Amino acid sequence: EISPQRLAQSLAALGQVGALEGGGVNRLALTDADRLGREWTVARMRELGMAVTIDAIGNVMAVYAGTEDLPPVMTGSHIDTVRTGGLYDGNYGVLAGLEVVATLRDAGVRPRRPIAVAFFTNEEGARFQPDMMGSLVYVGGLPLAQALATRAADGCTVGEELRRIGYQGPAAIGCPVVDSFVELHIEQGPVLHQQGVQIGVVEGVQGISWTEFTIEGVSNHAGTTPMALRHDAGVVAVRVAAFVHELALRYGGRQLATVGSIQLSPNLVNVIAQRAVFTVDLRNTDEATLACAEAEVHAFAAQCAAAQGVACSHRRLARFEPVAFDPLVVKLIEQETQALGLSALRLPSGAGHDAQMLARVCPAGMIFVPSVNGLSHNVNEFTEPDDLARGAQVLLQVLMRLAQR
Amino acid sequence: EISPQRLAQSLAALGQVGALEGGGVNRLALTDADRLGREWTVARMRELGMAVTIDAIGNVMAVYAGTEDLPPVMTGSHIDTVRTGGLYDGNYGVLAGLEVVATLRDAGVRPRRPIAVAFFTNEEGARFQPDMMGSLVYVGGLPLAQALATRAADGCTVGEELRRIGYQGPAAIGCPVVDSFVELHIEQGPVLHQQGVQIGVVEGVQGISWTEFTIEGVSNHAGTTPMALRHDAGVVAVRVAAFVHELALRYGGRQLATVGSIQLSPNLVNVIAQRAVFTVDLRNTDEATLACAEAEVHAFAAQCAAAQGVACSHRRLARFEPVAFDPLVVKLIEQETQALGLSALRLPSGAGHDAQMLARVCPAGMIFVPSVNGLSHNVNEFTEPDDLARGAQVLLQVLMRLAQR
Ligand SMILES: NC(=O)NCCC(=O)O
Ligand SMILES: NC(=O)NCCC(=O)O
Repeated sequence: EISPQRLAQSLAALGQVGALEGGGVNRLALTDADRLGREWTVARMRELGMAVTIDAIGNVMAVYAGTEDLPPVMTGSHIDTVRTGGLYDGNYGVLAGLEVVATLRDAGVRPRRPIAVAFFTNEEGARFQPDMMGSLVYVGGLPLAQALATRAADGCTVGEELRRIGYQGPAAIGCPVVDSFVELHIEQGPVLHQQGVQIGVVEGVQGISWTEFTIEGVSNHAGTTPMALRHDAGVVAVRVAAFVHELALRYGGRQLATVGSIQLSPNLVNVIAQRAVFTVDLRNTDEATLACAEAEVHAFAAQCAAAQGVACSHRRLARFEPVAFDPLVVKLIEQETQALGLSALRLPSGAGHDAQMLARVCPAGMIFVPSVNGLSHNVNEFTEPDDLARGAQVLLQVLMRLAQR
Repeated sequence: EISPQRLAQSLAALGQVGALEGGGVNRLALTDADRLGREWTVARMRELGMAVTIDAIGNVMAVYAGTEDLPPVMTGSHIDTVRTGGLYDGNYGVLAGLEVVATLRDAGVRPRRPIAVAFFTNEEGARFQPDMMGSLVYVGGLPLAQALATRAADGCTVGEELRRIGYQGPAAIGCPVVDSFVELHIEQGPVLHQQGVQIGVVEGVQGISWTEFTIEGVSNHAGTTPMALRHDAGVVAVRVAAFVHELALRYGGRQLATVGSIQLSPNLVNVIAQRAVFTVDLRNTDEATLACAEAEVHAFAAQCAAAQGVACSHRRLARFEPVAFDPLVVKLIEQETQALGLSALRLPSGAGHDAQMLARVCPAGMIFVPSVNGLSHNVNEFTEPDDLARGAQVLLQVLMRLAQR
């Protein structure tokens, strides 16, 4: 049995690193805070006697040896956060994995296969896009060189920042090869909490589309330039952003759409914006609908830009089709949940996760625990300690079943 | 006759201060660049033997003595710029005023009344609101203490910055008392250039309304939060901004509307915005229509905020009713323009100007010269040298007529 106290303590301790005044944490990928978080976590891995390797994109893998030298069963998640994040997103999956290892070690249990606990670089995609970058590189979905060259809005590249914080490791990409992967995570949405269910059995991850639009107009005086003569980049940005919101309402169902970032230049009250850069985040469990939403947004942006006489360009920041998890892993999670006498609900994941990348190379699945009021990417993100403990216990059972095969 | 070369040289020299790579200038009010611009201009005033005084809000007045000790006829404008401004906005009026004094001095001419050349603090309102702050304080329209306490988005106050750059002077507010005020300025709009007219005779300034809206929602995960459960501050910002644009088109005529500044927090691709701060700039020559536009925007913002379940507050950054200039000064400008054989057009000013504040305490008027393609608040702002010279010559004639009265 896992120790709820030890798990809670480790979450609180890692939550101190990059803590924000008034709660929550800012540990954007590859910042100094991320480095400190990595150091704390690696130290904990070493305390548990695990063999730690770091690969060329900064993914950290720690292995608890099995009785046979087989590919490990892996768990894990990420420890980077958004700028105003909570203490659970990602961190919980990593620390619960280490809690499982601590429990096995205390009990003197060695499974047949090794158990690996990993944390992947830049899962959030808040500073560098795409999200799930480390796991995507790990599975060969993004060339290492391209990932390293990715530049943040602050001007830094992934490669520079990895070297600066000392986390570009010697391990080869894709090593170790894993047997299977199970990720434990807070739901980040409202379903389990609202329905009073203890464990979410994740069937898959919805499709994700991130696009950055750049509008180039002409700055001019807000008081002297007739409406008809304007080339206002800001007008195009806000019209497209309003359209994106209406599109989600019009599609209904599982369509989500968010404009979370807008930058106008020069961003002054009496100057017509010369440039606008904004992002569009579209999600759907259905690939065809997602593609249709993307096409509508692009067409509307082009039409608005033409009407305003400005240039409109865009680049894809991330694009992942919906992913279905391995049916046997899903079934196993459901069975072990029920065997522990816990209530279970099958559901899709709204957020992207490293498990969806690992699913490209091995049987993979995910376990969710409830998020109070469905809050995440918010400093008030919270999961009840009992739910945290239940999730870790399910993880232990599932990992042991996989590792004993 | 004024010297076109000397005028052009002084504009080029002041344009070096805070020059941007690739053209244009950044001399936001009370920055180090503004201090350097002030030093350059004060040195030029002293070279001309003028008596320089600086008041408690940093307005700088230089007086060329007349034959009698009467209240001076004043000209001038401002030397602060927007973040990506041109070389003419404001600077031209100040330097043309000094060119008039240099011409009189070279010719050994002393008018009956003194001639004063002033530059007023923070006319642009780009860093601190309201705009025309120095002239507004000068005429008693804004208490000094309130102006000094005004805080910029960068956290600094007007008072701190004035003291830091050494421009909080000993002269009392409202001194010297002036006889009359004439400001020479580039049009900043397209009318004179499009119609091929040499001199604009400004009849008044349209009304200006600046409001800052702050929307407070709840940040949450873009991938997990159903549309119906969101409290997205960004959605309200973009809907209101799009409405503001549509309102201007719907009103037609002389209604202008601009959302030049938007700030989302945390401003990340996959995080629903917790806070949005944006500005609305509304202008109209008709006060009743302007008030009606303001009321519509407020009502729509409140309605959007309610629909999204977020808080909406606002503060007035600036509000000036339309101003009519003194009919005799307007007539005098028109007569002197025609006497020089130049073409003239009566028109309203789209931009706010220090002259509209001075109009509260003395007969005031303005002279415009054409802006090529109506560009302003843009690094490519340009006025032909011949037009610059013509405007300065009209200014000389008008000032002499007023000073000889
Ligand atoms: N789990 C999580 O928050 N991932 C970030 C990527 C996303 O936006 O879905
Ligand atoms: N002349 C000028 O650009 N003034 C700035 C204030 C305004 O926005 O009208």
